[in-house]
Amino acid sequence: MATVDLNADLGESYGRWQLGDDEALLRVVTSANVACGFHAGDPATLVRTCALAAEQGVSVGAQVGYHDLAGFGRRFVDVSPDDLYADVVYQIGALDAVARSQGTRVRYVKPHGALYNTVVHHQGQAAAVVRAVSELDPTLPLLGLPGSVLLDLAEDAGIPTVREAFADRAYTDDGTLAPRSEPGAVLHDADEIADRARRMVVEGVVETTSGDTVAVDADSVCLHGDSPDAVAAATAVRAVLADAGVTIRPFA
Amino acid sequence: MATVDLNADLGESYGRWQLGDDEALLRVVTSANVACGFHAGDPATLVRTCALAAEQGVSVGAQVGYHDLAGFGRRFVDVSPDDLYADVVYQIGALDAVARSQGTRVRYVKPHGALYNTVVHHQGQAAAVVRAVSELDPTLPLLGLPGSVLLDLAEDAGIPTVREAFADRAYTDDGTLAPRSEPGAVLHDADEIADRARRMVVEGVVETTSGDTVAVDADSVCLHGDSPDAVAAATAVRAVLADAGVTIRPFA
Amino acid sequence: MATVDLNADLGESYGRWQLGDDEALLRVVTSANVACGFHAGDPATLVRTCALAAEQGVSVGAQVGYHDLAGFGRRFVDVSPDDLYADVVYQIGALDAVARSQGTRVRYVKPHGALYNTVVHHQGQAAAVVRAVSELDPTLPLLGLPGSVLLDLAEDAGIPTVREAFADRAYTDDGTLAPRSEPGAVLHDADEIADRARRMVVEGVVETTSGDTVAVDADSVCLHGDSPDAVAAATAVRAVLADAGVTIRPFA
Amino acid sequence: MATVDLNADLGESYGRWQLGDDEALLRVVTSANVACGFHAGDPATLVRTCALAAEQGVSVGAQVGYHDLAGFGRRFVDVSPDDLYADVVYQIGALDAVARSQGTRVRYVKPHGALYNTVVHHQGQAAAVVRAVSELDPTLPLLGLPGSVLLDLAEDAGIPTVREAFADRAYTDDGTLAPRSEPGAVLHDADEIADRARRMVVEGVVETTSGDTVAVDADSVCLHGDSPDAVAAATAVRAVLADAGVTIRPFA
Repeated sequence: MATVDLNADLGESYGRWQLGDDEALLRVVTSANVACGFHAGDPATLVRTCALAAEQGVSVGAQVGYHDLAGFGRRFVDVSPDDLYADVVYQIGALDAVARSQGTRVRYVKPHGALYNTVVHHQGQAAAVVRAVSELDPTLPLLGLPGSVLLDLAEDAGIPTVREAFADRAYTDDGTLAPRSEPGAVLHDADEIADRARRMVVEGVVETTSGDTVAVDADSVCLHGDSPDAVAAATAVRAVLADAGVTIRPFA
Repeated sequence: MATVDLNADLGESYGRWQLGDDEALLRVVTSANVACGFHAGDPATLVRTCALAAEQGVSVGAQVGYHDLAGFGRRFVDVSPDDLYADVVYQIGALDAVARSQGTRVRYVKPHGALYNTVVHHQGQAAAVVRAVSELDPTLPLLGLPGSVLLDLAEDAGIPTVREAFADRAYTDDGTLAPRSEPGAVLHDADEIADRARRMVVEGVVETTSGDTVAVDADSVCLHGDSPDAVAAATAVRAVLADAGVTIRPFA
Repeated sequence: MATVDLNADLGESYGRWQLGDDEALLRVVTSANVACGFHAGDPATLVRTCALAAEQGVSVGAQVGYHDLAGFGRRFVDVSPDDLYADVVYQIGALDAVARSQGTRVRYVKPHGALYNTVVHHQGQAAAVVRAVSELDPTLPLLGLPGSVLLDLAEDAGIPTVREAFADRAYTDDGTLAPRSEPGAVLHDADEIADRARRMVVEGVVETTSGDTVAVDADSVCLHGDSPDAVAAATAVRAVLADAGVTIRPFA
Repeated sequence: MATVDLNADLGESYGRWQLGDDEALLRVVTSANVACGFHAGDPATLVRTCALAAEQGVSVGAQVGYHDLAGFGRRFVDVSPDDLYADVVYQIGALDAVARSQGTRVRYVKPHGALYNTVVHHQGQAAAVVRAVSELDPTLPLLGLPGSVLLDLAEDAGIPTVREAFADRAYTDDGTLAPRSEPGAVLHDADEIADRARRMVVEGVVETTSGDTVAVDADSVCLHGDSPDAVAAATAVRAVLADAGVTIRPFA
């Protein structure tokens, strides 16, 4: 029987500014990538999000990112590996303490935004993230893109890796994501997204932009929750997977 | 035979901006109050400071403060207890992860600057700091001013408390510190400071502004290191205490 | 014939985080208190808000506040007068440049949040705000609470003052606002709010919590726009005032 | 008779953290590139620096940079042109208000750190800086590297451009700076630096790393002041230029 994890970004509010529907998403996902304060997530938000995650039995992961609130971590920053290493250790530790104070703990790490995209190919920054996890707790899994430099280096370092797929993103024939700038790169129809998630998990394939199919290895499916539509799609994914007999549970 | 700890603020640089002579101070103190990033101390600075502290066998404490870089944590911020609780948990966790990555860990907590002064009397903020330590790790000692609300509440919560005295500050007859605004409130002469430290530790008294003496209970003596003179005074304190046969060692 | 200005807070988004319905409010108010980046309002938000205000013929004011993003400027910060003076000059200048680049300019200054409340009574901080305006451009009006230290000092300094009233806040018999912590301190019914605004402007009185009336001098009525209900109430205020023959126009 | 401007970075302290010897440098330079708060320079620092510059008759320029305090603006940030445009307008306006409050004003703009290096070649970011100056005040000169995209676009936009040379940096035969990573890329000997400045200004040439000479067009010579040695070298440059009969005066 197939098994999969569902992950989404949470805890991305900041002080007065609210973002996302954390309560709704926590009823859908099994893993919550919780922001750590550098690009989103003030400490009081993290306390609330971790408390809710603990209550719902959802695994907490550290959504580490660049130190850039104004840019929400979505702008590449050419930070040195040593500084990035320190930033990542700091963020994981901060969130872990908050999680522990609420009865849970950080169970994995997932880079966010521009850092996520950068560590797909950037040796220096990918190595810095791996070193941070490795020196802090090498049993902490890294969640990322299959084939990324990040996951390759993590494997070399003996860190557990978790590969994710995107049910609401178009794939090309070589199994990579179509750039967001292309029309149709992001899907919005809840039924279509749910069906793609089902094929990914049950059949191990996704239909590409050319109409072919390509294999995907998905330990976890990434869902979005920053709009009512996105929450509806996430809910549909979970329902369709359950109907297909898939076991939905956290990887960590 | 008398025993005492010597503590000082460290890790207060921020990125390009250097502050204090951490290397010199780490040869003098037994406990390092390391900044946690909210009022000072970027993560790369914390990595360097914790690595040096680990190397020298100096205990690392979390120097928690208000979220106010421009003010260096020296301005009272009327933060709500819930937000302050979250800020303190976050800061302790961030520094603890950095410390652990460098082979040591956070062994105590000391509020900084305006927060230090506020929790002497402010029930709400003092209780928030105590709750943060209590829920995170109630075996973590709190270092603070004897008679402060902070230490009173910590005792009530079963948290170990450590009382500090200031060798370079004038005391009034009731055993409190003379306000910095008064002439003579801060001492600068290394020999005088060292002799006051000796009396505090060996005799348990300090000479007051009136010329009388008053009892002080000093588990730890706070030293300053933000000027060459201050490092010289700190060094003199250590030498005089050692000559007087005092055992100088970390309390945690 | 009575004349009044309607003001509201705008430009309070920050990067990814959206707050308030600026487009809707700009169709209602005649003066926009635009955040300046220290407690809200990243520069790109300010550009958009000033461009819209210029398009709608709405006067732009500098909504100056404490340097505290996480607290949205709603927490008192015990900043020194010299530092606050510098912070206020900086914020006014930053917003004025953005406004000028979009074809308008800063026409007045209004303190925000905790700073607004503090300068009602705090001599040092009120004087710092007045000095900032006075040295930068003493023809720039200050918008604030009637009877506040801020407006008193501004008058002494020859700075034009503009007194505001709150249509959605309860007043006590002495003409001050009932504390938000009291039940009924904030009104939500659009018709009631609109009628109170009409009496304030046309009759110069407001009904108090005891059922009596008290005189109010309102050069400007402050509206809120941070919820759909608030925008509806603001719209109702404008409609009722227009029906009553009141001329609604910016004071600057 | 030759004429030249001498410029240096000033106002780079931040709150408690002091950097550079502004008082000494202001006796040497004719143009002060004053930080604007995004990568350095809190408002109180800017007030002090502008007051000193006004007193000494030194021209104030806006040292605009990336919004990155922890990185001191020295890390490339992939900010969008629209966001960078807004950031630059905001920073110029903020400093100009501070300067005006102290009796002077912003007379030119110079990008800082990683932004300086990026706008040498990056069309989008260079165009954003040019657009900011152009829409705010197209008579404000831009100070930058000869041959940079920034100065090219500024000329196209009708903005005055000022070309700078570096007396303490090695040049290659094609007239570009040798990368800092190469040995000998940064010179430290005060006499050598002063003599190179003299040849740049009087003869219009600089000796390259190969021993040849190459032409340099220097409207302004950039000096450094972040160490006692650097201040000594800056002082030597001014003395040698004065001895050579060069008129040293601000370009704006």
